[in-house]
Amino acid sequence: MPPWNDRFLRACRREPVDTTPVWFMRQAGRYQAEYRALRERYTLLEICRRPELCAQVTRLPVEQLGVDAAILFSDIMVPLGPMGVEYELKESVGPIVARPIAGMADVARLRPLEPEETLDYVLETIRLLVRELPVPLIGFVGGPFTLASYLIEGQPTRTFVKTKAMMYGQPAVWHALLERLTDMAVRYLRAQVRAGAHAVQVFDSWVGCLSPADYRAFVLPHMQRLFAETADLGVPRIHFGVNTLGLLPLMRAAGGEVIGVDWRVDLAAAWDLLGPDVAVQGNLDPALLFAPEDVLRQRVQDILASVAGRAGHIFNLGHGVLPQTSPDRLRQVVDWVHSMGGDQREH
Amino acid sequence: MPPWNDRFLRACRREPVDTTPVWFMRQAGRYQAEYRALRERYTLLEICRRPELCAQVTRLPVEQLGVDAAILFSDIMVPLGPMGVEYELKESVGPIVARPIAGMADVARLRPLEPEETLDYVLETIRLLVRELPVPLIGFVGGPFTLASYLIEGQPTRTFVKTKAMMYGQPAVWHALLERLTDMAVRYLRAQVRAGAHAVQVFDSWVGCLSPADYRAFVLPHMQRLFAETADLGVPRIHFGVNTLGLLPLMRAAGGEVIGVDWRVDLAAAWDLLGPDVAVQGNLDPALLFAPEDVLRQRVQDILASVAGRAGHIFNLGHGVLPQTSPDRLRQVVDWVHSMGGDQREH
Repeated sequence: MPPWNDRFLRACRREPVDTTPVWFMRQAGRYQAEYRALRERYTLLEICRRPELCAQVTRLPVEQLGVDAAILFSDIMVPLGPMGVEYELKESVGPIVARPIAGMADVARLRPLEPEETLDYVLETIRLLVRELPVPLIGFVGGPFTLASYLIEGQPTRTFVKTKAMMYGQPAVWHALLERLTDMAVRYLRAQVRAGAHAVQVFDSWVGCLSPADYRAFVLPHMQRLFAETADLGVPRIHFGVNTLGLLPLMRAAGGEVIGVDWRVDLAAAWDLLGPDVAVQGNLDPALLFAPEDVLRQRVQDILASVAGRAGHIFNLGHGVLPQTSPDRLRQVVDWVHSMGGDQREH
Repeated sequence: MPPWNDRFLRACRREPVDTTPVWFMRQAGRYQAEYRALRERYTLLEICRRPELCAQVTRLPVEQLGVDAAILFSDIMVPLGPMGVEYELKESVGPIVARPIAGMADVARLRPLEPEETLDYVLETIRLLVRELPVPLIGFVGGPFTLASYLIEGQPTRTFVKTKAMMYGQPAVWHALLERLTDMAVRYLRAQVRAGAHAVQVFDSWVGCLSPADYRAFVLPHMQRLFAETADLGVPRIHFGVNTLGLLPLMRAAGGEVIGVDWRVDLAAAWDLLGPDVAVQGNLDPALLFAPEDVLRQRVQDILASVAGRAGHIFNLGHGVLPQTSPDRLRQVVDWVHSMGGDQREH
């Protein structure tokens, strides 16, 4: 086994680190020539279902970029299949659900997730990876709100009108749906950690479309349970969404050892809002990877400088790596974070 | 001339009002059967180019909903045509620009706007409207950032990668482009006010995709000039964008007598951030129009109660009316705001 780099886990726990750890959301994906070549032969879901292949895809950015954590290659829709949801991942569109959820009968048809029985290929991938990875492995699940939005809309949406109409108009159906998705999330995360995942991230990517009042009424109780029922796992849990500045105090109340934020907020200001007892992850705009080298380097430095001296910063983008991104640029960012992150902490 | 209702203008100036004024962004549009019928015979731009028709479309929501202000029916792309931009408004997609701006030569080809010569149909519409409207007329312009994003991307975008790549990589081209768009905005707003508009709104709708650092470097100077060079007009200027919580202090510094915010923030919290010397506009989630009556009514009341006793609240949605919205629901909201807004101010 290669030497173990635990910088990421130490930062999640706000322990001293030699330098700032860094990884990238969607660090395995279309920006990589190797991934694009594989995708000519396999669909995304086919890759997920082949543990050796999936482990290889998960490992590639660790080897190529030198990031401090791997994240399981998968999709937030994966656990919905065994629950009885028929869907496809449509290229450059997103998840399309065959029969969107419209009422209580649809919710009642969702089966409880039995990860060991129906998602063993995911768990086997995790088991393979943790044997050989030189860095921690992050498992993940979609947040109940974000998954519910796909299930109700049937496709990606900009307005979330059907989702919100159900929240407001059929609150019993809404809460029953979120309850099932929360049950799923708890079981799935527990199984991932049992299989060896060292940390987990809850991708509640689209929850930032809600007002604070709606988050409090329709999402917070479920997220609190999700975090309460995974607390005993003892692994860091990263709680992430985009456009969440107005929700940060509520997301903090929901739970997570690490809160992930996007670039729409100054990282230090977000951290002040969250309080010192939590780690933060972020928050470079993925579009900055298309900037000239000196501009990019300055922004990486600005982010590091803005939170220098505080324990618990994990460097990341504010959202996933964009498909046109240059792998070289990402590698540069990793190097800069490692060299300048160290510098920052010495002052 | 019908009795003049100046509640909206008084609230913009933070003067005492009998009750909270209300209007809706995109209050003339696809949710109206009358509008849909007209659109079977005319394109959006054809309506804009016929003053009588355009005035009729602008007036309709005032008559049907009882709102306290009219907003000129138009599109933020309209002034770009006379500047030499070839574009179409593609149904349910948005503006498509034939030759996106990629470099300094493209910027240099943009002609200065001469509103009186090339957009007289807009000014004539305004002149017609102010003669007969019982409420103030709001003129508008797109924010330089938002217009630049359409000109550079060539189409609506979720990631703004090309826009940001130009900002970072060709800052001279970027600033030259924003300078020309700011010149246009100043001339266009001045002409609209000369023609009779009682207030104006700057729709910098997509500026919330920027980090505070990017807004400060690439947008703020232009917005400051836009507001400085329209200050002598003496009409209230509403400064609006979505997803702007992290930018609010900078938008406030840019200018505007009224700052418009979306539903992702508590209105009172946003106002606290902006300070008491400015009016605010907002901020009901347009999706709440799809909620049951009691839920909607409660949220309207919550918003009014949260800022009760403060001078300078204009009730609005946090973004435009959605096409599937019921006109009856909008009328109810107007009635509730008028009745409960008054109630709030008596306590």
